[in-house]
Amino acid sequence: MSSPATFIPPERTLMGPGPSDVSPRVLNAMARPTLGHLDPLFIDLMDEIKSLLQYAFKTDNALTMPVSAPGSAGMEACFVNLVEPGDKVVVCINGVFGQRMVENVTRCGGQAITVEDAWGQQTSAQKVEDTLKAHPDTKILAFVHAETSTGVRNDAKQLCALARQYNCLSIVDAVTSLGGIEVDVDGWGVDAIYSGSQKCLSCVPGLSPVSFSPAAVEVIQNRKKPVQSWFLDMNLIVGYWGKGGKRAYHHTAPVNSLYALHESLLILHEEGLQNAWQRHQQGHEKLSAGLESLGIEFAVDPAYRLPQLNMVKIPDGVDDAKARQQLLNSFNLEIGAGLGELASKVWRIGLMGHACKDRNIDHCVASLAKVIR
Amino acid sequence: MSSPATFIPPERTLMGPGPSDVSPRVLNAMARPTLGHLDPLFIDLMDEIKSLLQYAFKTDNALTMPVSAPGSAGMEACFVNLVEPGDKVVVCINGVFGQRMVENVTRCGGQAITVEDAWGQQTSAQKVEDTLKAHPDTKILAFVHAETSTGVRNDAKQLCALARQYNCLSIVDAVTSLGGIEVDVDGWGVDAIYSGSQKCLSCVPGLSPVSFSPAAVEVIQNRKKPVQSWFLDMNLIVGYWGKGGKRAYHHTAPVNSLYALHESLLILHEEGLQNAWQRHQQGHEKLSAGLESLGIEFAVDPAYRLPQLNMVKIPDGVDDAKARQQLLNSFNLEIGAGLGELASKVWRIGLMGHACKDRNIDHCVASLAKVIR
Repeated sequence: MSSPATFIPPERTLMGPGPSDVSPRVLNAMARPTLGHLDPLFIDLMDEIKSLLQYAFKTDNALTMPVSAPGSAGMEACFVNLVEPGDKVVVCINGVFGQRMVENVTRCGGQAITVEDAWGQQTSAQKVEDTLKAHPDTKILAFVHAETSTGVRNDAKQLCALARQYNCLSIVDAVTSLGGIEVDVDGWGVDAIYSGSQKCLSCVPGLSPVSFSPAAVEVIQNRKKPVQSWFLDMNLIVGYWGKGGKRAYHHTAPVNSLYALHESLLILHEEGLQNAWQRHQQGHEKLSAGLESLGIEFAVDPAYRLPQLNMVKIPDGVDDAKARQQLLNSFNLEIGAGLGELASKVWRIGLMGHACKDRNIDHCVASLAKVIR
Repeated sequence: MSSPATFIPPERTLMGPGPSDVSPRVLNAMARPTLGHLDPLFIDLMDEIKSLLQYAFKTDNALTMPVSAPGSAGMEACFVNLVEPGDKVVVCINGVFGQRMVENVTRCGGQAITVEDAWGQQTSAQKVEDTLKAHPDTKILAFVHAETSTGVRNDAKQLCALARQYNCLSIVDAVTSLGGIEVDVDGWGVDAIYSGSQKCLSCVPGLSPVSFSPAAVEVIQNRKKPVQSWFLDMNLIVGYWGKGGKRAYHHTAPVNSLYALHESLLILHEEGLQNAWQRHQQGHEKLSAGLESLGIEFAVDPAYRLPQLNMVKIPDGVDDAKARQQLLNSFNLEIGAGLGELASKVWRIGLMGHACKDRNIDHCVASLAKVIR
């Protein structure tokens, strides 16, 4: 190790698939003095975080809280609590995160039945219905609302309705959707949902808001086998995050990161959900016009494009890695690479939360104009 | 929800079982602009964090990194990676965290054989040896180095030697020991160890440094059954935290919390391990003298008292909850309650990391003098 020193990062503009730009309000909140995790003032803050998350998710679910770890752990929290060995889970795959769901089902001893669509296409509701019909003993339907790897919005409302129609629970990945497009947990009848702090909530990475319906809670409370993860066992976590009063110690909450999450949720609450969704849509339209002026084409059908994650084709003759490196080094601008089969074919331009604003869009279009020439 | 507002916490003095006081240097580091988790500058920082952790743990283990979640997840990372169904694990219990290890073994499908000593007593090396002799097919010996629930130091060097003698791997809980008393991973031959960011490292809570020996890595790579946790599977995480060059995306690292951990490890490196241990010992002696002057007695034998966590008897006639409440409300001072069978019988006074300094000790003794009268 050469002599280590305090790390002073540059100020980037984060327009990749996340983390997104974090508001100075959130960074300041995080730097406030640490409280004990059982301090009465901190417990009041936990209650307020729960209420703000209920607002963001549009739910009255009592079991709504942030898992003390990144979105991948939020995903795992949903699967380890709801899936028991032998359970059938229908998983929709049209990108990286649907595939990861299959990994989760398998590691819980469940049986994953996959409904596959091409990366960049929407999940076919017809295929899902056919699969649920063919497997009437399916316990759970799991899908990704906003596929971060492709910029595709799956039709969460319709898929949740199918889950209910075929007597399944639903698990929804809302990592990239929450705060950027409509998420309506109670309206759609979602049973388990997880998100990430570092996308459209524009908080620092490291926390995963989750919410479970009363039906899901009943399933968790009546499991035959204990949840395989102690850290993610909702039967234990509920004693720590439960409403008011005496808390049972489970783990030490990430106190300062929760200050940050609280502040980011407060910003969302001040703006209002509808306004936040509208801002993302308007940013997307402005970015689209700018990209069109450069001759850069989208790789996703307009009917199901995510405003907050824009997957576009890399123009012919442009070197992917070199262009992104130039954006980072010359313009302090981060955009995302393609993943899997889309690597070096597409870019993913994020417009998430605090990063979705005119200044950033202008900077992105102007910088792209220079590197693709 | 009444109208939510920005949360401005008071500045407490944190002398409980953790989190401990966080240095302003660490809080400032955490508030710096977020970088993308695949940014080359951030990847360099990850490498430096690994080197600083190797210094703190006294190890050359290549697989040394922070798990992106609290100490409980670090514990789970050690068990889910090393324990397979049917494996025998000897677990030493003399407090809360030994018990939690048993939970982890069981949830991995392993068989826990317990060596129990009273809370407040040290683990008996003789009993451990007898147990290992009686169970020659034991795969792992697991124990807590510094029992946060009682303030007892177990003899890690001796227990690790027994593990080697009986051909076992060792799993060591160093949540409260790292940075406060000697931890010598390579010297003792530890195979898997986990700690927490919020104790003697005086970083914010939410991260768990871990280290695995080459022998442990070999066991993990040659498992019969995949690790049951996707999020904690070291076979995957190593691709993300592996040395230099190209990183395989696994999860989104908690970027700003890692800035904080880096700064706290830098502070430890500047001070030097020996000096940090000595400072904790001197603080403990000063606190002991102060408590003695108040007639407050220790509940742990001096031969194995932890300097950084002082378990003392609540004086006769003093109301536990009322006294701690008064310390918090009138003096902004947090000390810890007793857990389990020790509840309302003892207090736990932490002297961890940045909190272990003369100013705090004087304040603690002076405040206690007022509330026990």
